[in-house]
Amino acid sequence: LLKELEGQVIQTAVIAGAGNVAWHLGNHLFKSGISILQVFNRSVHAGQELAQCLKAPFTNKTEEVIKNADLYLLAVSDDALEVVSEQFRFPGEYIVLHTAGAVSMQIFEGKAENYGVLYPLQTLSRNKPVDFNTIPLLIEANSSKNLEIIRQLACRLSECVYEMNSENRMFLHLAAVIGSNFTNHLLSMSERIMTDRGLPFNLLRPLILETVEKAFSITPQQAQTGPAVRGNKRVIQRHMALLESYPQIRELYSLLSESIFNMADNKRGLPK
Amino acid sequence: LLKELEGQVIQTAVIAGAGNVAWHLGNHLFKSGISILQVFNRSVHAGQELAQCLKAPFTNKTEEVIKNADLYLLAVSDDALEVVSEQFRFPGEYIVLHTAGAVSMQIFEGKAENYGVLYPLQTLSRNKPVDFNTIPLLIEANSSKNLEIIRQLACRLSECVYEMNSENRMFLHLAAVIGSNFTNHLLSMSERIMTDRGLPFNLLRPLILETVEKAFSITPQQAQTGPAVRGNKRVIQRHMALLESYPQIRELYSLLSESIFNMADNKRGLPK
Repeated sequence: LLKELEGQVIQTAVIAGAGNVAWHLGNHLFKSGISILQVFNRSVHAGQELAQCLKAPFTNKTEEVIKNADLYLLAVSDDALEVVSEQFRFPGEYIVLHTAGAVSMQIFEGKAENYGVLYPLQTLSRNKPVDFNTIPLLIEANSSKNLEIIRQLACRLSECVYEMNSENRMFLHLAAVIGSNFTNHLLSMSERIMTDRGLPFNLLRPLILETVEKAFSITPQQAQTGPAVRGNKRVIQRHMALLESYPQIRELYSLLSESIFNMADNKRGLPK
Repeated sequence: LLKELEGQVIQTAVIAGAGNVAWHLGNHLFKSGISILQVFNRSVHAGQELAQCLKAPFTNKTEEVIKNADLYLLAVSDDALEVVSEQFRFPGEYIVLHTAGAVSMQIFEGKAENYGVLYPLQTLSRNKPVDFNTIPLLIEANSSKNLEIIRQLACRLSECVYEMNSENRMFLHLAAVIGSNFTNHLLSMSERIMTDRGLPFNLLRPLILETVEKAFSITPQQAQTGPAVRGNKRVIQRHMALLESYPQIRELYSLLSESIFNMADNKRGLPK
């Protein structure tokens, strides 16, 4: 297979998008030796900035998109993907990839010959460097040959490359939203309570990092502690009283405590 | 003041309790050079194990408790504290401390002359070593002299020693329950979804650790990402469909998404 792939290794790319994912993936492709032939982006300012960084020309016009790249990386928002994937269809041998966790690969069906997905499972902010090498990259392709080409590309970026189909990736994305976005929201509530009392939120940092480490070193079910899992109604009631002026946090406190208690009480694992 | 405290530095201690907090605090007191005169615990097995580890005698009888220690550390459950604090009252100069986040220092009122709180803000499991030196220790005392004695003791255990009164500690404990226990519960849901699809939960580890790091390096409000904060109804609806066979997770998904959206929409910070 490797022999067959010779000459089909990706060497040049066009990047569509200039957001956080485009920024990080573009830069890591560039550093790994891929020539970025062009950056395409609707908004000029962000696109030009990324293009400059990648030593590539910039365009915001679909008709100016360079046609002979090996790879078209569509690192745009889920909503833009529908439109952009329509715009990037021309004759020739190339692979087109999107980078979205929650969008099926089938968005490319009938629009391209060779296509797939390269989803980096990490929260990326343009200005915050991350160790890309440890970011799980979930890949998918419309043929085993394309899968190997994408795998080769992905392995140049990260040590953690996994094949995953669109349906599983959708569940993974859901699990990531719950574990990451919702966790961050809990931290917002926590921070609000601390700040309102004039207490430094940073005090909680060692606790919360250790909580996450522990959940992954045993299992979160085994790691569950606190008043709710012990059914400590006295503490729960005291907390509910402290939350009197935070009705929305109070409601979530009550529901999450109930959910934790049910899980422990049932001894049947997590609530269905 | 330091001069005044001379001769009042804590050198000997009796530990009540043999749970996770007693285990960690006992061992770190011992390592820091405090002589543990005795371990008291209702249940013999756990108590004897800790006593052996601390090279101390063990008792489970209140009347056998050694009377001449400098410190009585009541590292027992919130509920046991009421009873145990009654049992540890004898004439003499000594300090009695509890280690509970959610219990007021006033539990000692009328029971002891010199008392306070030493609350380690960390999730402690007996079998999991932690870097105690970075654990925030929240201290409180019923007099400034006692506070200094407790501070000296706490500084032998950790670099992060903060004075905090009972009311603030209660809010801190609430913020810790939300940020730690509830976060762990979200991770349980996440794990459940992954495991049910045969996906390795560990894939989410880099994402979730980075999420926490980011929340503390900027603020969680600034760090909020995901479909809910963007008001991406399409993705939310797809997730809700995927959760059809998880009604309890589905309900929490819906409420947390709403709460995140409201926070972003209002531009007035977190929902009250």
